Amino acid sequence: MSDVDTPALILDLDRFEANSARLMAAVKGRGVRVRPHAKSHKCVEIARRQIAAGAIGICCQKTSEAEPFLAGGIADVLISNEVVGDRKTLQLAQLAARYPAAKVGVCVDDLYAVAQLARACEQAHALLDVYIELDVGHNRAGVTEITTVVALGHAIAAHASLSLRGLHAYFGNAQHRRSVAERREAIDAATATAHSARQALVAAGLRCDVVTGAGTGTFMLEAAGGVYTEIQPGSYVMMDIDYAKNEQGLSWPTFEQSLMILTTVMSRRNDAQSDRATLDAGLKSFSTDSGPALPAFAGWQVRAVSDEHTVLERTGAGPELALGDKPLLIPGHIDPTVNLHDWIVAVRHGKVEAVWPIDARGAIF
Amino acid sequence: MSDVDTPALILDLDRFEANSARLMAAVKGRGVRVRPHAKSHKCVEIARRQIAAGAIGICCQKTSEAEPFLAGGIADVLISNEVVGDRKTLQLAQLAARYPAAKVGVCVDDLYAVAQLARACEQAHALLDVYIELDVGHNRAGVTEITTVVALGHAIAAHASLSLRGLHAYFGNAQHRRSVAERREAIDAATATAHSARQALVAAGLRCDVVTGAGTGTFMLEAAGGVYTEIQPGSYVMMDIDYAKNEQGLSWPTFEQSLMILTTVMSRRNDAQSDRATLDAGLKSFSTDSGPALPAFAGWQVRAVSDEHTVLERTGAGPELALGDKPLLIPGHIDPTVNLHDWIVAVRHGKVEAVWPIDARGAIF
Repeated sequence: MSDVDTPALILDLDRFEANSARLMAAVKGRGVRVRPHAKSHKCVEIARRQIAAGAIGICCQKTSEAEPFLAGGIADVLISNEVVGDRKTLQLAQLAARYPAAKVGVCVDDLYAVAQLARACEQAHALLDVYIELDVGHNRAGVTEITTVVALGHAIAAHASLSLRGLHAYFGNAQHRRSVAERREAIDAATATAHSARQALVAAGLRCDVVTGAGTGTFMLEAAGGVYTEIQPGSYVMMDIDYAKNEQGLSWPTFEQSLMILTTVMSRRNDAQSDRATLDAGLKSFSTDSGPALPAFAGWQVRAVSDEHTVLERTGAGPELALGDKPLLIPGHIDPTVNLHDWIVAVRHGKVEAVWPIDARGAIF
Repeated sequence: MSDVDTPALILDLDRFEANSARLMAAVKGRGVRVRPHAKSHKCVEIARRQIAAGAIGICCQKTSEAEPFLAGGIADVLISNEVVGDRKTLQLAQLAARYPAAKVGVCVDDLYAVAQLARACEQAHALLDVYIELDVGHNRAGVTEITTVVALGHAIAAHASLSLRGLHAYFGNAQHRRSVAERREAIDAATATAHSARQALVAAGLRCDVVTGAGTGTFMLEAAGGVYTEIQPGSYVMMDIDYAKNEQGLSWPTFEQSLMILTTVMSRRNDAQSDRATLDAGLKSFSTDSGPALPAFAGWQVRAVSDEHTVLERTGAGPELALGDKPLLIPGHIDPTVNLHDWIVAVRHGKVEAVWPIDARGAIF
């Protein structure tokens, strides 16, 4: 690992595999399928390993993000997001048409978007699975009125190219509420909303085979509620500082930090005024929306982050950091951090086993 | 422009050209050369245009960032940063050897790094311009003691492969101090420090032909001080919310926001509970280290940003935003925002004139 050029994402394979196994064990027998979210890792090789561990497919957020996974042989991809506009819906339909053996899904929350999707599918000779997005509390996308859910269901069912699969009910910001009690309250309400919407669809003679949602912060709650049939955790395989702050429920699995950022000490000062080590990774190597990346060791704290630098200052007993040393940082928020890199270096016991491309890096379309 | 797929960086060419001309006019006759920092735009075409407007070369922060500019014909590139370690110094020396007609510079603040650079240059048969980095107040890299400056100068001069050019004296965080008085105090002190260091080098029989530094927030101060021979502003051609908050000095040029982010309204809610428009750009399309990207129009404010979404809510009179509409956002901080994209769409009067690759996107090595 000491030969790896910096800054670089380092994935500890033992921890990664343990995290993957812990998730599958934790939900075994609870009647939910696991569809990990690939927006956090954007890496086909990781998706393949998640499926080998028992996942039934993956989620993506964008058409361009789904593309490398379909090309890489992932046969069940749900875009857990709206795709809007004639150009974007046609791109999606053309992608689905290129992989007729794969299942490709998308979310809707507007009648106009249903019409656009149907038109695009007819033009591209494509079939899409469609999920009605429910707003279960996040107020970012999704519908809140049961009558709108049913109207969308009828609109989808009216098109032979669109297959109504059910409901997408993801409570995004509930993932990061720190106490279990807060998250339980949020997910209990989401589960009740999803239950009502499903009942309304079924009462209207429409299909609702799938209720999908949940993330790393709450999936044990959705899995226990008896309404969700599918969970979408993403961060659990790699973890970050933000998720590590969550209180964990009894009998919930604990995930280990498997992703780190390898850096180099590129400037060092140690005199009466300052004891600082400046690293060669900054805002272009990790995101700071959930706080900066932090040292994976004691005795040093982050004093400043700029585009290409992180300045650490000594605060207590900890490792010496000399010019050229390669300390590890823990990312604050993995999704936008991984998206800054072109590959992940997979290591075991400090030795490099593989370098995996971040296939969907920059796939924002 | 309405045909451009989103999210996308949009560069208004009229404003970009006006910004470029304003900078050159503002420092004309002040005895400083202009070496714009390319870490903010990472785009060879923009560098070419800056040089056509009168710049003498560019700055980069990393060896891998310098590479596309050298390959693109930029003949004078200063890496305004330390390059440390046998592997990284060899990469730099090999790059310089590939472009023998170009000037390639680098900064040092440590005797050990000087030895590494010299060894790498001998191995690669390369020549490098070397600048001693002074810490003029940022405490990120650079030396503070005059005796160390002179010791570094002698060490550099001892190697035929290294050419001592002078001092790098950039006061990074002074750029963002809001009042002119605060910035003036910081740069007056930096100028005095640089003056002393230059005198010490010259007194020791060493060369110090160049004193280089300064950014968009302070370059008028360095240009007026009589010590700096070169300025390195970067953000001035594109601008961002952070720089727009700075008080401007009398007779200083005012730069216009030329870079925007084109987005699509992908979900819309307007009922008694909420009047929100959700855009298809989030943390993977702009950085939030200086605050989120903000609407380029009145009547809407940012309520939340997540990986792929920005939620706007209405706060007053402003444009209607319907599903599929394509509003523009102003980036909070351009450098890490541009780095998230693969191209810039150059427009004039709302029509696309060109699409320029962001050649050094992700060049963190």
